[in-house]
Amino acid sequence: MGVIHRYTGKEGKYDWEDSIHRDYDHPDVKGAYGKILLGKADGAYNFVFRYFNVAPGGHTILDKHAHDHGVLILHGRAKVILGEEEFEVGQHDVVYVPPFEVHQFFTIGEEPLGFLCVIPPKEKK
Amino acid sequence: MGVIHRYTGKEGKYDWEDSIHRDYDHPDVKGAYGKILLGKADGAYNFVFRYFNVAPGGHTILDKHAHDHGVLILHGRAKVILGEEEFEVGQHDVVYVPPFEVHQFFTIGEEPLGFLCVIPPKEKK
Repeated sequence: MGVIHRYTGKEGKYDWEDSIHRDYDHPDVKGAYGKILLGKADGAYNFVFRYFNVAPGGHTILDKHAHDHGVLILHGRAKVILGEEEFEVGQHDVVYVPPFEVHQFFTIGEEPLGFLCVIPPKEKK
Repeated sequence: MGVIHRYTGKEGKYDWEDSIHRDYDHPDVKGAYGKILLGKADGAYNFVFRYFNVAPGGHTILDKHAHDHGVLILHGRAKVILGEEEFEVGQHDVVYVPPFEVHQFFTIGEEPLGFLCVIPPKEKK
């Protein structure tokens, strides 16, 4: 059975129907929250869709792990650390973070950064 | 090594650096083209990112297959057939099409429809 998660954001708040909110209370994260948009709860066993929002002046954690990320920037601009390189990206740009690549996203400018981040599921069906 | 595919679209043409263009010359498709944004060519073996653009008055094929789709609407509005149901969706809405669910996207209105469609890879690494 197909599933639709409607976007319900307004006035600068990004949200979706039946999404799962995640705060990041970690000292190395600043001004970021996440939403799980699509995953096992929908019967989707091949990928997980997450949305991340990073406030102006904020950043995600400097991270490195076995799973890869497929990222599409939805709004705002970012400085992205990928391994030993640094890039600036904006709306609709696509970023691939391979397994074990060090990565971190910083918001550039006054608009919140928002991006879709797709990961493989932790366990395959 | 991380990969960035920058969005290079302008004046209503949606495009990305180093993406693979696909036309759909099929009698049951109208006004649609695709771009592969992320996949094996990038070393990504867990998912494929595709972008589809459907012109006003156009539609994708009425399709049904073993792999599932994770869709996020990037621009425009669509009527979506999912099984025996029909929905209207717009920017940032997320649609999950499970395996073997009949599905089809029609553009609503005068703006081209654009959406990200994520699929699992045909062969796992």
